[in-house]
Amino acid sequence: MEFPSKIIEEAVNQFKTLPGVGKKTAVRLVLSLAKQQKQDISSFAQAIDSLAKEMKQCKVCKNFSDDDICRICANPLRDNGLICVVQDMRDVIAIENTGQYKGLYHVIGGVISPMDGIGPDELEIDSLVKRLQQGNIREIIFALSATMEGDTTMFYISKQMRGLDTKISSISRGIAIGGELEYVDEVTLGRSLQSRVPYQS
Amino acid sequence: MEFPSKIIEEAVNQFKTLPGVGKKTAVRLVLSLAKQQKQDISSFAQAIDSLAKEMKQCKVCKNFSDDDICRICANPLRDNGLICVVQDMRDVIAIENTGQYKGLYHVIGGVISPMDGIGPDELEIDSLVKRLQQGNIREIIFALSATMEGDTTMFYISKQMRGLDTKISSISRGIAIGGELEYVDEVTLGRSLQSRVPYQS
Repeated sequence: MEFPSKIIEEAVNQFKTLPGVGKKTAVRLVLSLAKQQKQDISSFAQAIDSLAKEMKQCKVCKNFSDDDICRICANPLRDNGLICVVQDMRDVIAIENTGQYKGLYHVIGGVISPMDGIGPDELEIDSLVKRLQQGNIREIIFALSATMEGDTTMFYISKQMRGLDTKISSISRGIAIGGELEYVDEVTLGRSLQSRVPYQS
Repeated sequence: MEFPSKIIEEAVNQFKTLPGVGKKTAVRLVLSLAKQQKQDISSFAQAIDSLAKEMKQCKVCKNFSDDDICRICANPLRDNGLICVVQDMRDVIAIENTGQYKGLYHVIGGVISPMDGIGPDELEIDSLVKRLQQGNIREIIFALSATMEGDTTMFYISKQMRGLDTKISSISRGIAIGGELEYVDEVTLGRSLQSRVPYQS
């Protein structure tokens, strides 16, 4: 595909680097962007440039942050004896949206997955263990993917925590609220039978 | 959804302005971008900024262009007596990819669609008519969408061309090459029966 414009071509090539964006989608996005007002396009470019120039990583929880310490870690009203271990910022947003969690987070950046070349050293596990060793953390809660990689990561971290008397827990797994039993897969259903809880009326 | 970072939030809001990109997709794209190397993010921002600062519109065919006259219009090897009327740059790319067309283009920017508030004045129709009046254009070929809006636009432009002896044609419509008859919709099949062509063996 030869583009009549080098500028469009370069922008398309950049959009193609994003996940799930192929050539046709990239062209569609770039052309719709090119049709916007010049100042709107500049604001778009500016917002992306800020990601490169101003974006930091929170020194405590390793989440993306505007400052050295992120808004959640810096909030004195939050329970600093409780850490929820998540994969990335999307999980933080999802948990924040429940409005049910008032502790802190640790964003490890993924899960151990040898197939994708991700070992423990690529993740923020050392910083988590150091944080547990230093602070008076009562409990850590794993909120990782319910996959083999997620389970492996939990197992690895729990082994690294030998000698610490921090309580370790994991978010519960089972059938989703509102889920009809016939549509639940067998593995989930089997697990939720095993991990059954006393009925409270 | 409250974001832990204003910088991320701003970038997400910008991505949400693109067609077909909702909040969840925008977050996914921005986080994947934020994880890239700083210089790659800057190149991305730079490519978009060029769309605002360097992008021009070809003075002849109204397509996006790096220069005042685009590469196609400036090419002396192309047949300047033939103009293909298309909606946007994607159509130019698609036709160029066939390798079967050596004429010039006129990019009108859409089709007349009162439902979307697009009238003839929003499109590059006046510039097309002027171009036809000035130059020695032998023929114009409409390559617009095969929809009511596309047909309306063709009709409108052909009416504007009263008094000119330019030949007007439209790309043929019918069943696609490789298409099986049973899957073709009735309207297309009906039209392709009406506009049947002599068999050449």
